[in-house]
Amino acid sequence: MSSDLLARLRLVRSPGIGPVTFRQLLMRFGSAEAALDAVPQLAARGGGKAPVMWSANQAEAEMARVEALGGRYLSIGQGLYPRALAELDSAPPLLIVKGDLRLLDKPMVAVVGARNASAAACRFARGLANDLGRDGVVVVSGLARGIDAATHDGAMQSGTIGCAAGGIDIFYPPENRERQTRMFEVGLVVSERPPGLEPRAKDFPRRNRIIAGLSQACVVVEAAPRSGSLITARMVAEAGREVMAVPGSPLDPRAQGCNQLIRDGATLIQSAADVLEGLRAPNLFASPRTPFEDAPVEMDASEDMRDRVVELLGPSPAPVDEIVRLSGASAGEVQLVLLELDLGGRLDRHAGGKVSLAAA
Amino acid sequence: MSSDLLARLRLVRSPGIGPVTFRQLLMRFGSAEAALDAVPQLAARGGGKAPVMWSANQAEAEMARVEALGGRYLSIGQGLYPRALAELDSAPPLLIVKGDLRLLDKPMVAVVGARNASAAACRFARGLANDLGRDGVVVVSGLARGIDAATHDGAMQSGTIGCAAGGIDIFYPPENRERQTRMFEVGLVVSERPPGLEPRAKDFPRRNRIIAGLSQACVVVEAAPRSGSLITARMVAEAGREVMAVPGSPLDPRAQGCNQLIRDGATLIQSAADVLEGLRAPNLFASPRTPFEDAPVEMDASEDMRDRVVELLGPSPAPVDEIVRLSGASAGEVQLVLLELDLGGRLDRHAGGKVSLAAA
Repeated sequence: MSSDLLARLRLVRSPGIGPVTFRQLLMRFGSAEAALDAVPQLAARGGGKAPVMWSANQAEAEMARVEALGGRYLSIGQGLYPRALAELDSAPPLLIVKGDLRLLDKPMVAVVGARNASAAACRFARGLANDLGRDGVVVVSGLARGIDAATHDGAMQSGTIGCAAGGIDIFYPPENRERQTRMFEVGLVVSERPPGLEPRAKDFPRRNRIIAGLSQACVVVEAAPRSGSLITARMVAEAGREVMAVPGSPLDPRAQGCNQLIRDGATLIQSAADVLEGLRAPNLFASPRTPFEDAPVEMDASEDMRDRVVELLGPSPAPVDEIVRLSGASAGEVQLVLLELDLGGRLDRHAGGKVSLAAA
Repeated sequence: MSSDLLARLRLVRSPGIGPVTFRQLLMRFGSAEAALDAVPQLAARGGGKAPVMWSANQAEAEMARVEALGGRYLSIGQGLYPRALAELDSAPPLLIVKGDLRLLDKPMVAVVGARNASAAACRFARGLANDLGRDGVVVVSGLARGIDAATHDGAMQSGTIGCAAGGIDIFYPPENRERQTRMFEVGLVVSERPPGLEPRAKDFPRRNRIIAGLSQACVVVEAAPRSGSLITARMVAEAGREVMAVPGSPLDPRAQGCNQLIRDGATLIQSAADVLEGLRAPNLFASPRTPFEDAPVEMDASEDMRDRVVELLGPSPAPVDEIVRLSGASAGEVQLVLLELDLGGRLDRHAGGKVSLAAA
């Protein structure tokens, strides 16, 4: 077993080390192993007690379980890990995948929507997914009821990727068993969560960012106002991908979310051809930024600088750029202080790269 | 009876004098009476025989009929003639109106759509028109079956304007009798065509430009691809007014025209509030251009210039601007030659201010 993977897994599963912190640690120390060694000291400098890190034994147990399931890990910045997903600031450091890995080399488009969608909308999603598959697109969705299920079914022959909110071996909802089992063979199932984990409420938006990150565009089919699909759409927009939506009659409450997306600038979609036309927009992936390609940053923050940054932080989220500017220090120095505070439990990270001081 | 109105009516009803020619004549001669006198000579200079003009008797007979019907004329650039409509290059020189003229002082929005619309779409149009009326908007439509009828009904209480393709006294389709009769009282019926005229195919697009010209915005409710409503939408866009459309499921062929309009940039409408929000866009009517406010242009074109312009014209429509530029003459001089050729039957006028030599 790879010692790098082992160290990465120990970091990822340790409390308080989210995707952004993981990225910062790897940039600072150059490897997961070096980062693991450094965490206790960093946390102490940040003013907290050292987090209890996952042990090598725990990591080895999970890795054995994934292997037994026929799954494998993909590490951010390495090998088959999807480049589009790696572009997200909050990209999962590790993915567990099971199925046909060749699907990751093709252009991907997400199709998502309401769990309680109308029969007509499910039929539309199935047909759209089928047509997109014929056109060489891999269709990504969330393995939920309704639109997601219809989407996976429509693209089953051409290849479809399901993003699970829990472990890849959990069938949620239970009636997904047959579909998901088939996708282990002819599709691909992806999760950042450990095997055996039953998804809870907070796992669904986490999962949605993976759907957004994998895909060049996301088509929303039938979504009510304030529905989860609209949250996915927002994530898609924030990730700089194309938001697309299928319209419906204003008299149908289940269409109002999609109609509002279109009013807000989403591309109106009536067919796979419309989706492909939308993809001809500037290609995000022409010159991908590869994460972690730099040498580790050798630097220590001074006590003065640490105090200065803590002073600048408050309970309201502030952009890191602003903290850097006001501190008068280099971005690298400020990031290091933030990393220490983070590991010390004194920093909260927010959407859009904002940070605040954690409540004591 | 006004002798100016009489002269205008004689001009308007004479063969070969369309709205653009009418406008040119009034700019050139300052009054309809002077223009009437000049037409034979202009036509002769343009190389054709003088058109047979409507006689004073014919005009008086029509005017008596309009009066007997309880209608009245509105002359472009005068009195109650709607300013927004006068902005169109092809604005009708005369309108015949019957009903509540105060409606012409309020902001107007058109609602149009398919004659064979679904019951749901008709219900939506009726509700939308009702809501717009409550918000102080006068709702304009085309007195057709389906969406138009539902629109007029929805706005009947607040005031609605129907643009007839034939004479104002013609009920087309026949089941409009009751609706249109009611609109003579509490709404307004508008036509540029003489009383008694049954509409023919070419009268409907003519009528549609009046709907477009009266309105700040036009909402299309349920329109199939290549339908008449889409032609109206194009006219609305050409007139610089807001095109708005109500979406529908891509599975419904009757929604595809509207969905395409939205893809092409029309504002997606789910409610009257959406329409009003769209109207907050830059106001077209803040500084209206008043037609015919200039003194008549005293000018005669030379023979040389006439030959030069004829040389520049061909069978393909060319922009007047280009003819002016290539001729080396002033715009006024070229317009005069074009007017002469027009009256002489040697010029065809096309959309977008283009002209071509008429087939011999």
